[in-house]
Amino acid sequence: MTVIYDRVALIGLGLIASSMFWAMKRGGVAGEVTGYARSAQTRETARDIGVCDRICDTIADACADADLVVLCVPVGAMEAVAREVGPALKPGAVVSDVGSVKRAVIMAVAPHLPDNVHFIPAHPLAGTEQSGPTSGFAELFDNRWCLLTPEAADASETAKLRAFWQALGANVDEMDPDHHDLVLAVTSHTPHLIAYTMVGVADDLGRVTDTEVVNFSAAGFRDFTRIAASDPTMWRDVFLNNKDATLEILGRFTEELFALQRAIRQGDGDHLHEYFTRTRAIRRGIIEAGQDTDVPNFGRNKK
Amino acid sequence: MTVIYDRVALIGLGLIASSMFWAMKRGGVAGEVTGYARSAQTRETARDIGVCDRICDTIADACADADLVVLCVPVGAMEAVAREVGPALKPGAVVSDVGSVKRAVIMAVAPHLPDNVHFIPAHPLAGTEQSGPTSGFAELFDNRWCLLTPEAADASETAKLRAFWQALGANVDEMDPDHHDLVLAVTSHTPHLIAYTMVGVADDLGRVTDTEVVNFSAAGFRDFTRIAASDPTMWRDVFLNNKDATLEILGRFTEELFALQRAIRQGDGDHLHEYFTRTRAIRRGIIEAGQDTDVPNFGRNKK
Repeated sequence: MTVIYDRVALIGLGLIASSMFWAMKRGGVAGEVTGYARSAQTRETARDIGVCDRICDTIADACADADLVVLCVPVGAMEAVAREVGPALKPGAVVSDVGSVKRAVIMAVAPHLPDNVHFIPAHPLAGTEQSGPTSGFAELFDNRWCLLTPEAADASETAKLRAFWQALGANVDEMDPDHHDLVLAVTSHTPHLIAYTMVGVADDLGRVTDTEVVNFSAAGFRDFTRIAASDPTMWRDVFLNNKDATLEILGRFTEELFALQRAIRQGDGDHLHEYFTRTRAIRRGIIEAGQDTDVPNFGRNKK
Repeated sequence: MTVIYDRVALIGLGLIASSMFWAMKRGGVAGEVTGYARSAQTRETARDIGVCDRICDTIADACADADLVVLCVPVGAMEAVAREVGPALKPGAVVSDVGSVKRAVIMAVAPHLPDNVHFIPAHPLAGTEQSGPTSGFAELFDNRWCLLTPEAADASETAKLRAFWQALGANVDEMDPDHHDLVLAVTSHTPHLIAYTMVGVADDLGRVTDTEVVNFSAAGFRDFTRIAASDPTMWRDVFLNNKDATLEILGRFTEELFALQRAIRQGDGDHLHEYFTRTRAIRRGIIEAGQDTDVPNFGRNKK
C-alpha cells in the first residue's frame, strides 16, 4: 500500500480507466484520482457508481496538479484529447496512455505536450468484450502484461510508471513502439479482424438459420463471437492506426490460407496433416512450458 | 437407468468413444460395451484403464451380437472399417458413427452394410483438443448437441438412437446430411482452418520471437491456439470430406476479409465501424437470448 502518484487523472472513463481506478484503490497506489469523459452521461454514470474520487467537467480541471495523466480514449481520439491536455499539465507531470497501437499514438500526442513533462506510452494487454465505466473491475490487469514504449523518456520516471502498473497487478515489459505494433498485429489485431469476418460470414449465409448457428457452433466459433463483440470504435481505430503491420500480417495470412485452400481443393491430405501437426505442436509447447494459465499467451520457447 | 441397447460395440477408441463408454456407464444406458481399435497399443491402454467392458482384437469379435455398432474412427477410415463391420453385423443391428461430416460418411459406409441392418449416421458436437482412449470423460456430451441424419432410416430405430444420445447427456436434432455439412462448414470447419492458419503465420514470423508471442497474446489469439491444437488426422479428414461446403464458406470469408483489408488500406473507418458494430450486435443477441452458457452456440434469433 504505497502511494506512487499523489494525483492521477484518467481522461476517458471506459473499461480500462474504470478498472485502473478500482485497481488503484485496491492497491492504495494513488492519492486522489480525478476523471473526465467527453459525454456528460458517462460522467454522471461514473459519479453515480463512484468511479474516480472526483469527476471533472473539463480536461483542464481533471489534469490540474496531476502527477500522472493517463489518456484512456480510443486511439483516434488521442490527438484531440492531447491538444487539451497539453496546456493543462503541471511541470514534471507524467503523461501516459493505454492505446493498443503505439507509434500512431506517439505521433498524435507528443507534438501537443510541453517540453517540461514526461511522455511514456503504455499498453495494458487486457480487456473484455464489455465497455464503459460500469464494466471496470480491480482484477482486470492481474497477471496481464503492460508494455511500455518509453524511447528516450527519463529512466527514473519510466521505472516509476513500471512500479505503478506492477502495483495494479500487471507484469511490465518495455519495447520499441514499432516493434510493439508488429507484435500486436500478430497476436491481437489480425486475429480480431479474422474473428470479425467469420462472424459476419455466418450471419450473412441465408441457407443456414441463425438458430442453427446458435445451436450448432463448435467451441472454436463461440470464441470467435466473443472476440467479435469487442468495442467497435476501439477496433476501428486500431486498424486505421496500425495499418502497415496489420496489412503485412493479413498478406501472410491470406497466402497461407490460400495454400491450405488449394490443398483442400486438390485433396492433398499430406499437406493438411503436416500443417495441422505443426500448429498442434505449438500449443503442446505452451503446455509443456507451463504457460497455459489464464494469462494470455501462446507459442513455444525459441530453440 | 434404463438399458437402451443390450450390447454396444465401439469401433475406434479415441476421445469420443472413450467418453461414450463412460457416459454409457454413468447412465446405465448399455448392457455390455465391447471395443476395438486398430492399434494394439491403444487396445492395451484401453484394457488397462477399463475403457469398455471387453476389448476385442478383431472388428468381427467386437461386432458379434451387438445391437448398436458405433464407428468412432476418423472420417477417412470409415470405408475400410465399414468393409469389415458389414459382414459381422447381426440382422436388425443399428450402425451409427460420430463423424464430423455426414454425406461423405454415408457414401463410404452405406455400400458395405447388409440390407437387414439400420444405418443412422450421427455427429455429436463435442470435443476437446485432447485425443486417445485416456482423454475420455463421462460429461463430454452433457448439454451438447448430437445431430442425426437418418434420411430414410426406420423411425422407431431413429427414436431409439435419439433416446440413447439423450441418455448420454446430449440434446438431439435431426437434419439432412448435406445441410448438416453446410452448417458445420460455417460453425466449425472453416473457423478451425482459419485458426490453424493464423497460428502458423505467427510461428513463421521471424521478426517476432516465440517468447514474445507467448507473453503478449490477447485472449482471442490464445483461443486460436487452443482450436489449432485439435487432432490433425481428424481435421485433415474433415476438410478432405467436406470439400465443397468448406470451399464455399472460405470463398465468402476471403471476399469479406478483402473488403475489410481494402477499408484498412483506404482508411475507411466508417466501413470498419459499421462491420464491427454488426458483429457485436450478433453476440449481444446471444446474451439477450440467454444463450451464452457453456453450451456452444452463437448468433441471434431470426426476426
